[in-house]
Order: sequence, then C-alpha cells, then structure tokens
Amino acid sequence: MSDKTVISVDTAGGDKGPAVVLSGLAQSAKKNPDIAFILHGDEAELTKLLRRRKVLRDVCEIRHSDKVVAMDDKPSVVLRRSAGTTMMNALDCVAKGEADVAVSCGNTGALMALSMLKLRKAPGVDRPAIAVLWPSTSAHGYNIVLDVGADVRADDRTMAEFAVMGAEYARLSFDIARPRVGILNVGSEESKGRVEIRRASELVAKITPAAGDLEYLGFVEGADIVGDKVDVIVTDGFTGNIALKTAEGTATFISDSLRAAFTKSIMSRFAAAIAYTSLRRLQKRIDPRRVNGGVFLGLDGAVVKSHGSADATGVSAAVKLAFRMGKTNFAKRVAERVALLPEKRQTHEAGEGT
Amino acid sequence: MSDKTVISVDTAGGDKGPAVVLSGLAQSAKKNPDIAFILHGDEAELTKLLRRRKVLRDVCEIRHSDKVVAMDDKPSVVLRRSAGTTMMNALDCVAKGEADVAVSCGNTGALMALSMLKLRKAPGVDRPAIAVLWPSTSAHGYNIVLDVGADVRADDRTMAEFAVMGAEYARLSFDIARPRVGILNVGSEESKGRVEIRRASELVAKITPAAGDLEYLGFVEGADIVGDKVDVIVTDGFTGNIALKTAEGTATFISDSLRAAFTKSIMSRFAAAIAYTSLRRLQKRIDPRRVNGGVFLGLDGAVVKSHGSADATGVSAAVKLAFRMGKTNFAKRVAERVALLPEKRQTHEAGEGT
Repeated sequence: MSDKTVISVDTAGGDKGPAVVLSGLAQSAKKNPDIAFILHGDEAELTKLLRRRKVLRDVCEIRHSDKVVAMDDKPSVVLRRSAGTTMMNALDCVAKGEADVAVSCGNTGALMALSMLKLRKAPGVDRPAIAVLWPSTSAHGYNIVLDVGADVRADDRTMAEFAVMGAEYARLSFDIARPRVGILNVGSEESKGRVEIRRASELVAKITPAAGDLEYLGFVEGADIVGDKVDVIVTDGFTGNIALKTAEGTATFISDSLRAAFTKSIMSRFAAAIAYTSLRRLQKRIDPRRVNGGVFLGLDGAVVKSHGSADATGVSAAVKLAFRMGKTNFAKRVAERVALLPEKRQTHEAGEGT
Repeated sequence: MSDKTVISVDTAGGDKGPAVVLSGLAQSAKKNPDIAFILHGDEAELTKLLRRRKVLRDVCEIRHSDKVVAMDDKPSVVLRRSAGTTMMNALDCVAKGEADVAVSCGNTGALMALSMLKLRKAPGVDRPAIAVLWPSTSAHGYNIVLDVGADVRADDRTMAEFAVMGAEYARLSFDIARPRVGILNVGSEESKGRVEIRRASELVAKITPAAGDLEYLGFVEGADIVGDKVDVIVTDGFTGNIALKTAEGTATFISDSLRAAFTKSIMSRFAAAIAYTSLRRLQKRIDPRRVNGGVFLGLDGAVVKSHGSADATGVSAAVKLAFRMGKTNFAKRVAERVALLPEKRQTHEAGEGT
C-alpha cells in the first residue's frame, strides 16, 4: 500500500450503515487507482460486503471493532468510553502514521473531541476549527465558512488563525492562489458590530499578511455567505453554527414547500413530471447532505467529517477531499501557515501598533 | 378622525416611492373603515396622488416635508440632521398623541435611532428590540424572532424582557393565549453554548412566569426558526441579524437557482408555464419582502417598519399590523407586561436563588 494515499475509514456511525459507506468508497476506488483504505467496523459484515465489491478487495484492509459511537452520545460520554470504537481506531491509524487521513460519518462533537485527544492540536495553533463548504453564487460554486461549532468563543487572535487556515482550505478546494477572506458581522461598514469584532478585524488586517497569500476584505454580512464577495467567511463557532443550521432549515423548508406546491393539483403534478430533471438538479445543489461534510483544521493530522446522512455520492465526495488532503500533506501545510503569524505574545503589540 | 385609529405614515424613504405606499394605504382603507392616515411627504406630490385615490381622500391629512432620510444614511448622521424629515415628523405625531402608531419603509437603523429619541423607551424597559415575523411550518405560518438588530449585545435580564415582549407580540399576531418561547443556541441540551446564554436561560425560566402567559421551553437551534417547536425565538441582536440575513440570502439563492433551472431548456420552460400558479404561491411564501417588516418593541409608542422594497401589498400588510397595534394599545400592553418582571436589582437575587 506504500505508494498509495491511505484513508482510514470509520464505516460505522453514519445513518445509513456500512453498505452505503462501502458503496461510496467503491465509487472513489473506481476513479482513483492511487487510493487505499483501512476499514474500521465489524469484520464479518465488512468481509461480506467486500465480497460484492471487486474494485475494493485489493485496496482495503479490515480492522475489526463492533464498538460504535452513537449519533446522540454526548462528547463527554464518548471521551470516557472511546477506547476501541471504530471512530477512535480510525483516528489512531492517522496518529500512528499508518494512514494519511481519517474519514467518518459519525457524530461531529464526538469526532472533534476524539481528534483533539488522539491527534492533538498542530504546533502553534491555538484553537482548531470546523470548516464547511457552503453553496454560493461564486465561480467555484461554494464558499468556506469557519468555525461552525468546534468552539463557541473566538478572540481576535483566534480569528486571525481561522482566516489563515480557511484560506489554506480555499486554496486546496478551489485552486485559487489568493483567497478573499471576510469576517461575519451585522454590516459591512467598519463601524458596525461589537467592539471585540472590530478589534479582531483590525488584528486580522494587520497580522495575516505575514502568513501570506490572502486578501482580507473586512466585514461581510449574512447574505454574503451565499454570495461572491469573499471565498472564506470567518466567524466564531456560536454564530457559525447558528448561521449553518438556519440556512439548512431554510433550505429544507423551501424544498418541502416546493414539493407541496408541486403535488397540490393535477396540473402541478404534471408540471413536476416534466420539470423533473430541472428540479433534481436544483435539489442536488441545495441538498445539505452534499455540502455539510466538514474538515477539521489545525489538528496534527487530517480528518474529514462526512455528513451523517451522506449517501454513496456524499461519501465518495468526502473521500475525494480526503485524498487531496492526504496527497498534499494538507494538515502540515495549515500548521506551517499558522506558524507564520507573529507569536501570541507579540500579537498584541502588533495589534496595538497603530 | 377621532373615532378612528390614526396611522402616521412616512411616505418617503422606501425604494419604490410614495405612489406605491399610497396604493398600499388604499388597499387597507378599502377593507377597513375605522382607519385614518396622516401622510408625511411632499405636499404637491401627495395631493396629486390622492386625486386618483377616492377611497383615501377623506381619511388622509397631509403634512408637508421634502426632507428625506436616505436608505444609506448612517444613524449617527441621521440623528444630527433629522429635524423636519418625513420620518421624524411621522414619529412626532405619535409622540404628541395625534396618531396611534407610525409606519415607515425607511432605513431601519435610522428609524430605530429616531424612535428612541422621539418616543423614548417605555417605563421599565431596559432595551427595546426589533422583532420580525419569519415564515415557518407552524399552524399560523410564522414565528417571531427578536432581536434582529436593535442592539448587538443582550445580557440575561435583557433576554427575559425580549421573551416577555416577544410573547406579547405573538399574542397579537397569532391569537394564541400562551406562546411558546425558546432561546437560540448551538444545541437544545441545557449544557450547550456559552456560559452567559446558559445563565440567561436559567433567569428567563425563573422570572418570566411573573409576567405571565408564556411557556418557556429552553434552548432551540437555528433550524427551529422555521419549525413548529416554539412561537418566539429570543436572541441577541448580533446573532439575530446574522441569522435573518443568512436566511434571506439562502432564500434568494434558491429562488434564483429555481428560476435558472426553469429557464434552462424548452421542456423546463414549458413546465414552468404550467406550474406558474404553484411557483408564484411558493415565491410569495418565501419572499422576504412580505415578512421582513419589523416592529419595535419596548418603546413608549408603536412603530412598524415596513420593508424598504415593499410593494402595495406589503405596505397594506404593515398597515394592518399597525392598525391592530393601535386599536389594542399594544405598546402600552408590552410595557405593562415587562413591568411585571422583578425589578432589575431584584433580578439578580432571583436568578441566583437556586
């Protein structure tokens, strides 16, 4: 397996079970000969599933575990009972260097807590963050938003780290050299919002040039998350989590209303049948399952969180991202960028310089 | 005019001009004989417009002003140059008791700043808030969210006031006796989120029963804003503003994508033509112009903010709300409810009691 990028997969923990996860891995393996998997899950079940998947047989190694972290387990409970779970074992392979990156469909809070425990923060990083791709009107079709829930608070130095880490993720995802970055606020004028956020904006403008290759554009508003003003939206985990869930709720609400509108009368059912392809295309675009996988930035190792209800295509998308992260040594590059920021005790002086 | 509910209307300041505003007033006057208007705007223009509107002629009084607060004027600038503007004059009529309630399509920040200046906070209210109706899956079709921008910070006592004021607005809007209230957080478990928000939740649970007739259900998440779990969602102005703009942005993004999907091919154009009625119905439901008017709660006088881009139907909806507020002495009732909360210096003891 040594020439391949090895992905350590937690096959349990998702809503749809290992069969769907393996179907996603098969999609990826078909397209990409440079990929290999270590599968964590029930050996008997995985062996049976692999029998049906020729393309996976020679690129998979099974590590047995029947202990699973449940979707509704609290992180505190998980931490106490994590030993030997498929999630912990998947991370362990990355920690030991057996795999380049870990992928899990499991509980986000638990995955972050165990990743912190097992992989630790990367040197120089104060607070890791969860970043998501968000559908937008930009040329590359998505924006990046962070943090969406790793930590509920973020001071000005943390915001600067988020900006640098988010920009690195934008370079990986969108192939752009100089990502545009904004901080989420209640208005785009410099005078808007809380004192802390104005101070954070000043510091980000001041110290991120040291970490290079990003264009800081100041404040952006909620509507800019789906717009083309910036590529990376930086916010604290509290605000980011609420914005994400509000947007998901709004998208689901509209999808459901659309479905209701199209089943209301015989004419509208007829129209829906004709417009089926167009409607499917739209639904794909706004479907949270396709985009709400997240990556954990700032850890000493790469972890991709696929959405709990991801189907095979969703899992395959997560694997593709994981492959690119493994191949390019992404986690290390993020840490190197953050290390270019002035040291923490100097940050304050830099921030107060003018 | 004395038996009628008098509404003081800032006819300028909206995106679509006085003609659209008057068209909205005419819709309301046709349906409601108990309504009268004081119109603030350019006398010559308004006189000319009234000539075409028989239904308005006998129920309108014109107060001339050609000074207008622009949509992009900053509140600080507005405060200095507000004297004699249509917005200020509209509020002045309420302050002097000539009108029961004011309606404006103008700049929200300016309207709040001038309302605070002219009407003052109601006795006992610490921080007024802007509340909006938000489309939802609930039986009454909407939820109430506050604060969405009056103030970017909110301590635990302020959250309790928001809960009580929001519940009173829910009683007015939805005709429900005992509105369900929740505080917006990153999860619904009691252990989630920042320390301040957990303290606020404890205080709201403890002191709002004194102000009666609301059911506090603890924390809700972003997705619950469009759901049926609570009728009133309480949050600070920063988070509320970002949630609102994110949801608006998401709705616009999906609408635009839907339009693009339906014009992509001849077949999809054909489908769109057949489904026209269904699509219009949906668009109406998710159109921010219809719902994003707000009311200012906690002032010593009633003010309705209609959306800047409201059409005649939107203006008429704002007038209908204003009429109900005037008729029921809404501003006074809100203040009476807030006055039932323990006094501020006792609040802390009450909050720390257990």
